[in-house]
Amino acid sequence: MAKKVGVLLSGCGVYDGTEIHEAVITMLALDRKGAKIICMAPDIDQFHVMNHLTGEATDEKRNVLVESARIARGDIKNIKNVKAADIDALIMPGGFGAAKNLSNFAIKGKDADVHPHVLRLVRDLMDAGKPVGALCISPAILAKMAADKHPEVTIGNDLGTAESITAMGGVHKPCAVDMIHVDRANKLVTTPAYMLGPGIKDVAIGIEKVVDEILKLA
Amino acid sequence: MAKKVGVLLSGCGVYDGTEIHEAVITMLALDRKGAKIICMAPDIDQFHVMNHLTGEATDEKRNVLVESARIARGDIKNIKNVKAADIDALIMPGGFGAAKNLSNFAIKGKDADVHPHVLRLVRDLMDAGKPVGALCISPAILAKMAADKHPEVTIGNDLGTAESITAMGGVHKPCAVDMIHVDRANKLVTTPAYMLGPGIKDVAIGIEKVVDEILKLA
Repeated sequence: MAKKVGVLLSGCGVYDGTEIHEAVITMLALDRKGAKIICMAPDIDQFHVMNHLTGEATDEKRNVLVESARIARGDIKNIKNVKAADIDALIMPGGFGAAKNLSNFAIKGKDADVHPHVLRLVRDLMDAGKPVGALCISPAILAKMAADKHPEVTIGNDLGTAESITAMGGVHKPCAVDMIHVDRANKLVTTPAYMLGPGIKDVAIGIEKVVDEILKLA
Repeated sequence: MAKKVGVLLSGCGVYDGTEIHEAVITMLALDRKGAKIICMAPDIDQFHVMNHLTGEATDEKRNVLVESARIARGDIKNIKNVKAADIDALIMPGGFGAAKNLSNFAIKGKDADVHPHVLRLVRDLMDAGKPVGALCISPAILAKMAADKHPEVTIGNDLGTAESITAMGGVHKPCAVDMIHVDRANKLVTTPAYMLGPGIKDVAIGIEKVVDEILKLA
């Protein structure tokens, strides 16, 4: 039986949603390894909409589930309807959507709130001994959700984010872009991806290692 | 010297813009082969905006260059400012954006008009003996632009599109998703990608072959 791996999206674009390259590389690696991909996102408004050409915020409104559907080619579930029993593992790509839409980590740092269905699904997966992977900035949100378990996660080398992870109860693990860290006690697998870059081929190395490790643990 | 390869985007999402997987797989393959990626798109309104969750058209307005910048992480040029001398080759990923934004092939079929700067750049590249690649539906638009040269292109097995290619003066070449066709006289390299699918790992095989062949020809 193919392993069913959730891919948690947060919009479509690095500055206000999912980092697109990270999501696609994750999906390609999962498909190549024979896993079944289950894309999901919350049905909520984005925190805001960024013009990715100018880097400026706009006054548009967009929905996280609807925009995430662009990456998923329409094949996506409302996370509200996904139970831990439905999947064998979950991977959270990065992008500011993780810190602005799935949580408000970009605004509140260590005091961040996480979307209730994201929190519920991740906690249920951890309780069931199922692995969770996170890329780029998403390990910080994962650390918040798993704070009582002192999760070990990567963020690259961003000092402020590393300090927030520590303040939330997590353990920051320095990590190169082509490497991963595995928290074996909690079955968490993380890599810095575009927190370090510099380019798409570089982030792909770490992401493919995350996928391999997640499928081993699942 | 790294070869400079243009990637021509048409928005961000399969139903109204660039097919995201095809674009990202193209960029990943180019970067892995040591090429320099130059993303570009025209600065025009999209034909329309599709809700990718429901498949329905909306009344939103979006700009092709601005939305394409999501795939390019902001690093993108207005095609108006790109000359054939600036690049060694060009690849056009698919998605309905090629048939609705870069051209009106989706509406007018064989009588389609192509955006003037897309047409100018592709004709100048061909005149300079530089290779052009196209994925998915984009070979049909390429066939229109190169009609007087009787270009050989793939489209998978879609009968209506194949007939339009023939009607425009092109030569339709049946092709599996994991294969490419090379028109050596015109230096055109095409593959069906998501015109056939079925999945991301399948389209990646053909796209990586296009990238390899384009770099050999460049």
